Amino acid sequence: MTANQYDNLIAWLRDAHAMEEQAETMLASQFERLGHYPELKARIGRHIAETKQHAALLKGCLDRLGDGNSILKDAAAKVAAMAQGLSGVFATDEVVKGTLANYTFEHMEIASYRILIAAAEHVGDTETAAVCQHILQDELAMAKWLEDNTGNIVHAFMDRSQHDIVANA
Amino acid sequence: MTANQYDNLIAWLRDAHAMEEQAETMLASQFERLGHYPELKARIGRHIAETKQHAALLKGCLDRLGDGNSILKDAAAKVAAMAQGLSGVFATDEVVKGTLANYTFEHMEIASYRILIAAAEHVGDTETAAVCQHILQDELAMAKWLEDNTGNIVHAFMDRSQHDIVANA
Repeated sequence: MTANQYDNLIAWLRDAHAMEEQAETMLASQFERLGHYPELKARIGRHIAETKQHAALLKGCLDRLGDGNSILKDAAAKVAAMAQGLSGVFATDEVVKGTLANYTFEHMEIASYRILIAAAEHVGDTETAAVCQHILQDELAMAKWLEDNTGNIVHAFMDRSQHDIVANA
Repeated sequence: MTANQYDNLIAWLRDAHAMEEQAETMLASQFERLGHYPELKARIGRHIAETKQHAALLKGCLDRLGDGNSILKDAAAKVAAMAQGLSGVFATDEVVKGTLANYTFEHMEIASYRILIAAAEHVGDTETAAVCQHILQDELAMAKWLEDNTGNIVHAFMDRSQHDIVANA
């Protein structure tokens, strides 16, 4: 492993850690407001627990690779900027935009873990590759659930909107 | 179709139109700089052409639904904010982050078209549903290509980084 390759792996792990923390914030905020969509709320609740575990697993990889906590803040600021961009478009007081934001964010996570797996394999760090493979499965399952349920969420929203109920979550 | 449901469909079509325009800007900027990754560059070039066609198709749906051009600007501003968030994290002078950004953006598009298809079906607008189904297939194909090639892109980047070459695109 050369210094540059090591730096890349560490930097991407840090980004992923910040991403999971941001995901937890986004999901927790949605969870509070999803009264009218109990199945979505339950699935998000389950993913919040997974998300916390993912952050801890990534922290474990960073500790093992000898990276301290000191620079985690920088990555967090970068990812927060992206998430703000997401919330800017998807004012998530509306369940359909929230679902769009979640599906989008899941795929940022999915791509990040595929990148991390390739990078870890490239430098022979099998433990980081295995951890990221484990997390990737959770993200794929969440993305699949959102995909399978998008139609139902839209129909439920449109029905509520038809009846002039406040159509928000 | 009630007024509210019609409003939802129109608003989401406008968002999608702005999203395609933003995609074109992002992809064109990457296309210019991807000298060292010819396959990625070629695939992005092809998707730029598709993206222009998608914007025109969405404009056709909006025209057919009686929506003028006047409010397209608002949606564009919203999506630009999101894309700025994306570029904030993914300073896309680096091919791996660019690939992450593209994969993420593709899935924002995929979710958007799934939502539009459900909404169009809900109100019985089969033509909009068919147009969005067509666009969805292009987005799924692009996402699949990015997924299949992420590993290779990461390995190529890591190799360049190992040899202390300027590892950017």
